[in-house]
Amino acid sequence: MPNYKAPLEDMRFVLHELFDGKTIAQLPGCAEFTPELMDSVLEAGGQFTAEVLFPLNQKGDLEGCTWEGGAVRTPEGFKAAYEGFRAGGWTAMACAPEFGGQGMPVALSTFVEEMMCSANMAFGLYPGLTHGAYLALYHHGSEALKRLYLPKLVSGEWAGTMCLTEPHCGTDLGMLRTRAVPQADGSFSVTGNKIFISAGEHDLTENIIHLVLARLPDAPAGVKGISLFVVPKFLPDADGGVGARNGVMCTAIEHKMGIKASATCAMAFEGAQGWIVGEPHKGLRAMFTMMNTERLSVGIQGLGVAEVAYQNAVAYARERIQGRSLTGVKAPDKQADPILVHPDVRRMLLTMRAYIEGCRALSGWVARQVDVLQRVEDEETRAEADDFTALLTPVVKALFTDLGFEAASLAMQCYGGHGYIRDHGMEQYVRDARISMLYEGTNGIQALDLVGRKLPQDGGRLMTRFLDPVLEFIEANGAEEMQPFVAPLQAAVEHLQMATGHVMEAAMSNYDEIGAASVEYLRLFGLVALGFMWARMAKIALPKAGTPFYRAKLGTARFYMQRLLPQTGALLAVIEAGAAVMMEFEDADF
Amino acid sequence: MPNYKAPLEDMRFVLHELFDGKTIAQLPGCAEFTPELMDSVLEAGGQFTAEVLFPLNQKGDLEGCTWEGGAVRTPEGFKAAYEGFRAGGWTAMACAPEFGGQGMPVALSTFVEEMMCSANMAFGLYPGLTHGAYLALYHHGSEALKRLYLPKLVSGEWAGTMCLTEPHCGTDLGMLRTRAVPQADGSFSVTGNKIFISAGEHDLTENIIHLVLARLPDAPAGVKGISLFVVPKFLPDADGGVGARNGVMCTAIEHKMGIKASATCAMAFEGAQGWIVGEPHKGLRAMFTMMNTERLSVGIQGLGVAEVAYQNAVAYARERIQGRSLTGVKAPDKQADPILVHPDVRRMLLTMRAYIEGCRALSGWVARQVDVLQRVEDEETRAEADDFTALLTPVVKALFTDLGFEAASLAMQCYGGHGYIRDHGMEQYVRDARISMLYEGTNGIQALDLVGRKLPQDGGRLMTRFLDPVLEFIEANGAEEMQPFVAPLQAAVEHLQMATGHVMEAAMSNYDEIGAASVEYLRLFGLVALGFMWARMAKIALPKAGTPFYRAKLGTARFYMQRLLPQTGALLAVIEAGAAVMMEFEDADF
Repeated sequence: MPNYKAPLEDMRFVLHELFDGKTIAQLPGCAEFTPELMDSVLEAGGQFTAEVLFPLNQKGDLEGCTWEGGAVRTPEGFKAAYEGFRAGGWTAMACAPEFGGQGMPVALSTFVEEMMCSANMAFGLYPGLTHGAYLALYHHGSEALKRLYLPKLVSGEWAGTMCLTEPHCGTDLGMLRTRAVPQADGSFSVTGNKIFISAGEHDLTENIIHLVLARLPDAPAGVKGISLFVVPKFLPDADGGVGARNGVMCTAIEHKMGIKASATCAMAFEGAQGWIVGEPHKGLRAMFTMMNTERLSVGIQGLGVAEVAYQNAVAYARERIQGRSLTGVKAPDKQADPILVHPDVRRMLLTMRAYIEGCRALSGWVARQVDVLQRVEDEETRAEADDFTALLTPVVKALFTDLGFEAASLAMQCYGGHGYIRDHGMEQYVRDARISMLYEGTNGIQALDLVGRKLPQDGGRLMTRFLDPVLEFIEANGAEEMQPFVAPLQAAVEHLQMATGHVMEAAMSNYDEIGAASVEYLRLFGLVALGFMWARMAKIALPKAGTPFYRAKLGTARFYMQRLLPQTGALLAVIEAGAAVMMEFEDADF
Repeated sequence: MPNYKAPLEDMRFVLHELFDGKTIAQLPGCAEFTPELMDSVLEAGGQFTAEVLFPLNQKGDLEGCTWEGGAVRTPEGFKAAYEGFRAGGWTAMACAPEFGGQGMPVALSTFVEEMMCSANMAFGLYPGLTHGAYLALYHHGSEALKRLYLPKLVSGEWAGTMCLTEPHCGTDLGMLRTRAVPQADGSFSVTGNKIFISAGEHDLTENIIHLVLARLPDAPAGVKGISLFVVPKFLPDADGGVGARNGVMCTAIEHKMGIKASATCAMAFEGAQGWIVGEPHKGLRAMFTMMNTERLSVGIQGLGVAEVAYQNAVAYARERIQGRSLTGVKAPDKQADPILVHPDVRRMLLTMRAYIEGCRALSGWVARQVDVLQRVEDEETRAEADDFTALLTPVVKALFTDLGFEAASLAMQCYGGHGYIRDHGMEQYVRDARISMLYEGTNGIQALDLVGRKLPQDGGRLMTRFLDPVLEFIEANGAEEMQPFVAPLQAAVEHLQMATGHVMEAAMSNYDEIGAASVEYLRLFGLVALGFMWARMAKIALPKAGTPFYRAKLGTARFYMQRLLPQTGALLAVIEAGAAVMMEFEDADF
């Protein structure tokens, strides 16, 4: 049986130390979020996720969800855990105080999200989707819709969903067929079939509020004819409570590789009553408000699963004795040495660790910029934060989930054959982590978003929001003791700059160069971003290297620079190879 | 539902064209194996695996094996399929004619194995383990034991197992505790517990013959005190038929991530009657006879799963329409283009394809050398083949299974969210493929075997068996048309030579340098080996590029050289980083 303990010390490091002592409390509306308060939130989050959610993780996987006559039963214990989650105020974390939210900065709530994903990723999807629905309504709903739904979503009494995908279209939403016909009372009659709807039906809440993409009768073809509707499972009654059943049904749940405790639903809307959110035909934009947040959240799933997998791999490597160190017996009192003595086991553990702590730091940077974007009044500062988060969102989503899956697989490898056995729990992490590379836009789509949309936008302005601070840091840290970190970072940044120049130029004559380079480019970008985080962490750790925490930081930073960052050179070579070798391949020859 | 069709054309290419027209029939004892006969074997194998084994694959995964009171039931249809497999003579393929075998060269039987792994990897484990037991007895058993057991194993009437692992020891067999006490009649009484025994118990055959590692009472400690015993489930009666039940029981089966139709058994030996195979205390050497063959077979599992995953990803990419090509509409008659138009989808497909066909070619080379080793009389030729197969065995095992898992995961990625859904069958390939990186020695252990044992052996002689033909090929193929293949190969070989020099020198002062470099070194070696295969394939394809098969070969060769082989540079950099960064990391800091 695996274990989990929230990595509070590292989270505190990112919150309080990493970003040059700029405190969260300086942000507008965040005065109460002192380091002390944030630490106590982290501790409470760590306790709840470890003690309540984590013990349900394996059981939830084993039991899964059950569909019967349109109803979905979540695994035993999920409902009680959800009640505890609600009672603890966790559904209200990053919501607006005017609707009952706690107004918590994203820089803090992201860490609680990470804990939730470590402890029980499948459980986390239920409140996760609700928060997505909250955001879409909060940013695009009418005042009446907000007053009606937001307090219930914030308190967690009601849950939410995002209904985008249809059987014939996922990535290409322009093809969607669900229709919404205006009614005399100003509402709409929504009809169509949706699939892959996480939390589409379940027994955790008395009502479920679906955010549904559909077409109006006069809608233009393609993505410019899509509108967003709110369609509750039960219509609110006059007092805002649960009223009549609406015409939306869960017709089946999917049998999946993992996240089995999360109900993935096929939904049938049959003349269901709904209300438009935002303007007609502008639904995709509204949906992207929640999609972008969801994409960051999915990235955090990768990080969360990697963390719990790492913790258990370390524990196993300490206790499993097998063979002797090649440089002489290390545990003479035992029949064999713990496998932690073997360089290859350390390689696997440090690879996971360097990715995890690098990603956690990067998630802290991005979350702070989300907070700036949401809270700071100065237009220019907000615009810069907007650029930065737009640029980094696909990177966080794809990089963290790719690395999360790799880390889970490495953790399993540390267990040898035992990793393949269900009881140890490691194989569940591999199965659960795998979905995060697919949903909310496959990682290939994220890479296209980065290279095809974000990079060329406004003459490459977005990229400068990332590169400028990196180049400034390199410039400012020429001291010899920083060379082991700054020199490899500089080499990697040069690879990134060359790759950027190559792709942008090649794409001018052939758009296929974008798709040909995109996945490797995103990985290269992500490795540089983690490299920057590691260089910054090393700088903080250097003068404190006498303390174990900082000593480990420095050691992990060196590992990252020497053994992981060198990948950038090969990625550049592959990017420069270009599209021709793929596009010249005849269709019939595959 | 997925599909499978044996890749006969590519197999024929490897058999008949790749190795300079040297035919299998020229080998001693292989005169009857003309190209025509081999083609008909391939066709029959393709038909049986596709029509009989493949339809049971998803069902077998869903149903799994069932344990009840010591008996194990395989999934519905497995017994009938096994009967067909036996009746077709497939259990006898690569066995000696004197015991009823067909004397088929390994160069041919390997391809049938590959088909079996594509069609139904879990099924393939039952005859696979039987063949391992056959080999151990064939090479090390007494004449009496051979006469008693081999005909039954060859015909498939009886099945076999390898019983190595115990709960506290897998890699480190020196710790094993199972004991064998000599009896007055010359037999032994075997007592102990084994785990992870594939096919340890099942309902496919009337008897199961266990090859068991155990210690004699006077055994020295460690690996030099291990002997090998044959312990049948039912003792043979006077006529060689099934007699009294022996004291060996299956106490449980494991619940695993995948290969659920393969029974992974915990076995209890309680005074079971057994007979020694080979000399006392020399059991590990005997067991390695079958381990090495099994390691090649496990590599083929990775290849087989990758092939079927690739085939289905291609089919899906052709039929799934979603979005439009960035360079303009390609299927104007449809609402969207097939996703095959997107460079990133092609990147995924060609990555799988280049690895698969490269591995298949390499498996052909290694299999031929196994045939030389087993059949040629000339000592020197045999010694060279022995070196070569010893060197390549860990590479085939680890490289093919790492790439098999990567390919299965890429194939799943081509399906988007649909890949995560059970019905499509892709997620099963990811789960099934994952075990091959763990069993028969984890891939980390393979890498240690390569770098720690095979490389330094006899002053590096083994390595020359691989490098010499590669360097000769490069030397002999300086023509301009070969440059796109030979130049990248040469660069990669230089990386390999530098890495070899670095590791061997560094290891002289610190053995931990071996473990620190081993996994990256094996990957680098493997990429060079595939690069050599691709250069050879390109050479054959160049003059025939007007034909689709050869045109595709050339295109895939170019893809491999431009987009996959460049990884070697980064691998060299990581190898040169050395062990210090991992070993200096304090134990307590993990």
